[in-house]
Amino acid sequence: MDNMTDPECLFCKIIAGKIPSEKIYEDADTFAFLDIHPINRGHTLVVPKEHYQNMYTIPAEPFAKVMRTVHLLAPKIKSAVGAHGINIGINNDGPAGQLVFHLHVHIIPRFEGDGFAHWHGNPYQEGEITTMKEIIIQAFK
Amino acid sequence: MDNMTDPECLFCKIIAGKIPSEKIYEDADTFAFLDIHPINRGHTLVVPKEHYQNMYTIPAEPFAKVMRTVHLLAPKIKSAVGAHGINIGINNDGPAGQLVFHLHVHIIPRFEGDGFAHWHGNPYQEGEITTMKEIIIQAFK
Repeated sequence: MDNMTDPECLFCKIIAGKIPSEKIYEDADTFAFLDIHPINRGHTLVVPKEHYQNMYTIPAEPFAKVMRTVHLLAPKIKSAVGAHGINIGINNDGPAGQLVFHLHVHIIPRFEGDGFAHWHGNPYQEGEITTMKEIIIQAFK
Repeated sequence: MDNMTDPECLFCKIIAGKIPSEKIYEDADTFAFLDIHPINRGHTLVVPKEHYQNMYTIPAEPFAKVMRTVHLLAPKIKSAVGAHGINIGINNDGPAGQLVFHLHVHIIPRFEGDGFAHWHGNPYQEGEITTMKEIIIQAFK
């Protein structure tokens, strides 16, 4: 597995225990620890033990293992911190907010009135949504 | 599968074709269509065909099928719309921003300078993160 580790990667160092973390879960393929810059208390990151930059480079099988851990942990974290909801998030690439380039899934406890507003959208103009569908479907071929 | 459909659910109606949608992908277990209130062009929702309210109620296997479709579509959508990044998001419960109570995963194309800032966090006080870890681990037992 050494060839699947990036010696310069912060999360690879955390997984290897070279940098301390508040670990809450670990299995053969995945590792979960508290985000030290939490949105809310209990904000957790789930990562594959192998180093993959993002969702585009991780194959389907290790990605499934990461999401299996997320599915396992989310309701436990919600219950443990008494949250009213849970956001799951994955940021791929810098313009999407990715800061550490080792794929990680955010599990974010949410509370009524915690003040984190969701983004407002940009409405489609008349007919634009159908054009967009065609553009995307075309990219599948 | 009828017993796994909620006749009052907006997304169940979309999957059944009773309400039109801009479908971009479908397989035996999952369905993907454009969000009509997009954050950015190409904003897509991936849903299980069976009705599950959120991540707490969907079993591991159908959840894995949804995430397999997300993993398949995300890079294709990024490429199709020329995005600079992709956010994946799941909102569970109203306080986390869930509006339709049929589990759905957001695939959101992002662009440099699109103006969608990320939430600022709430720092832990000294020692608080370790206490939080203990609280969460305790909930696993």
